[in-house]
Amino acid sequence: MTHSVRTKPAFIRSGQNALLKRYRRALTQGELTEDGCCALEGQRLLEEALRSPGVEVVSVLASESAKEKMDKLAESNSLPFSVTTDRLFQKLTQTETPQGVAALVRLPERKWEDCLAAPNLLAAVLVGLQDPGNLGTILRGLEAFGGGAGLLTPGSVSPYNAKAVRASAGSLFRVPVFPKMSAEQAMKNCSQAKVKCVGLVTEGGTPIEKVDLRGPVAFFVGGEARGLPGNLAKQLDATAQIPFTGPVESLNAAVAASLAFYETQRQRRAD
Amino acid sequence: MTHSVRTKPAFIRSGQNALLKRYRRALTQGELTEDGCCALEGQRLLEEALRSPGVEVVSVLASESAKEKMDKLAESNSLPFSVTTDRLFQKLTQTETPQGVAALVRLPERKWEDCLAAPNLLAAVLVGLQDPGNLGTILRGLEAFGGGAGLLTPGSVSPYNAKAVRASAGSLFRVPVFPKMSAEQAMKNCSQAKVKCVGLVTEGGTPIEKVDLRGPVAFFVGGEARGLPGNLAKQLDATAQIPFTGPVESLNAAVAASLAFYETQRQRRAD
Repeated sequence: MTHSVRTKPAFIRSGQNALLKRYRRALTQGELTEDGCCALEGQRLLEEALRSPGVEVVSVLASESAKEKMDKLAESNSLPFSVTTDRLFQKLTQTETPQGVAALVRLPERKWEDCLAAPNLLAAVLVGLQDPGNLGTILRGLEAFGGGAGLLTPGSVSPYNAKAVRASAGSLFRVPVFPKMSAEQAMKNCSQAKVKCVGLVTEGGTPIEKVDLRGPVAFFVGGEARGLPGNLAKQLDATAQIPFTGPVESLNAAVAASLAFYETQRQRRAD
Repeated sequence: MTHSVRTKPAFIRSGQNALLKRYRRALTQGELTEDGCCALEGQRLLEEALRSPGVEVVSVLASESAKEKMDKLAESNSLPFSVTTDRLFQKLTQTETPQGVAALVRLPERKWEDCLAAPNLLAAVLVGLQDPGNLGTILRGLEAFGGGAGLLTPGSVSPYNAKAVRASAGSLFRVPVFPKMSAEQAMKNCSQAKVKCVGLVTEGGTPIEKVDLRGPVAFFVGGEARGLPGNLAKQLDATAQIPFTGPVESLNAAVAASLAFYETQRQRRAD
């Protein structure tokens, strides 16, 4: 029986520590760190990152209280592991009841052109989507129903926003996501690659079951407040709407998008 | 030409004011006020309340900055209208950027027995659902697809939580909601009323398209972390799962529930 060599994690006691500063910035500002890392919170998301192909865990940070439960995971995965006080950890995040675990991860580089070339692409182009929870939920639904790319226009929320990362339940680590892509550019690329551009609208569209979604398709989904801009919708190959009868103005954006993904997979399965 | 008589709104300058205290409690604790009112925030939700049958707007409160835009709405609807300082308004709410408009509304009394007797009931029984955003989104989806009742077990989040109210986009004012109803009680009532009890599960269930949803149906939806308890699922008439192929463990609870409601309406339409 051999004993594994245990390296003690670095203990950080100063709020001015450079690593803590990187965490704080990434967790509160929803941006990648200067060296291109995305921050995540919680053991479950860390485990999702570890099981996601091509994702590199650059740093794991635990609060003193959470250190013990993280020791084994960090050791068995040879993760660079640091510990800080509960008080300093609390200050890093905007989560009301943080679990005391965070990590910085580097996502694999992906090319939009590669996604476009995939057979039967299912993509989502999010046009001015504002709510990070909706964004994460859309990525989760997209992955569930076989989606291969998520695009975000410049006016949309960042996919690296802590709430978006959490709501994606790990899908952000696996679905190729392209922020700051204009709707026009996405439309042009799709058109060249023979990917059908379908706008999700709340009125004037074809009931989604009647839109042929069996070939490659990109859904254009508008923001929560205003939906898809009318002049954009006009330029797309088709507009689709989710049929509903109740006296609501619209569905939640993440629900509407997920229904479109579900319907796409239903049609492809029945094919 | 007659001039309408303008009553000046009461101006509240003290944080100790009894009305402000009622707002603060309702908005931050997610409970009904002592006299059974639900709090809402924002002009859009207030307009939803005004167009919802049987909903009584008991009080409207605006911050000084928002007073002007509310004057007309309050006057034309003869609403009891109060104004407070921006600073005091900010303290009432947990919203990061409050719009300066809030209201207390009394929802009409509804009876679960009446819902059960409706032809082709579509109901949702939420078993330990925790996230207020998910709850509101489920009620919005439920109403969109013709749902007639939302039930919440004692361990679930309150439907009067400010985030739930907001995410419901007004559906909470129209869909009969019954909090603190046990899953067992709901099951028993449904069984007696010949309402099919269908559990939403992530494995071992029948693909939802193959479950007959054309008659009265109640979907049992579990909480975000653990899903539907196994011993409960066993007692239901059927368990259904949303088919998906991607490497996600599950769908977001609100997305899964909304897909079930959509599929129900699809089957009924095709019937």
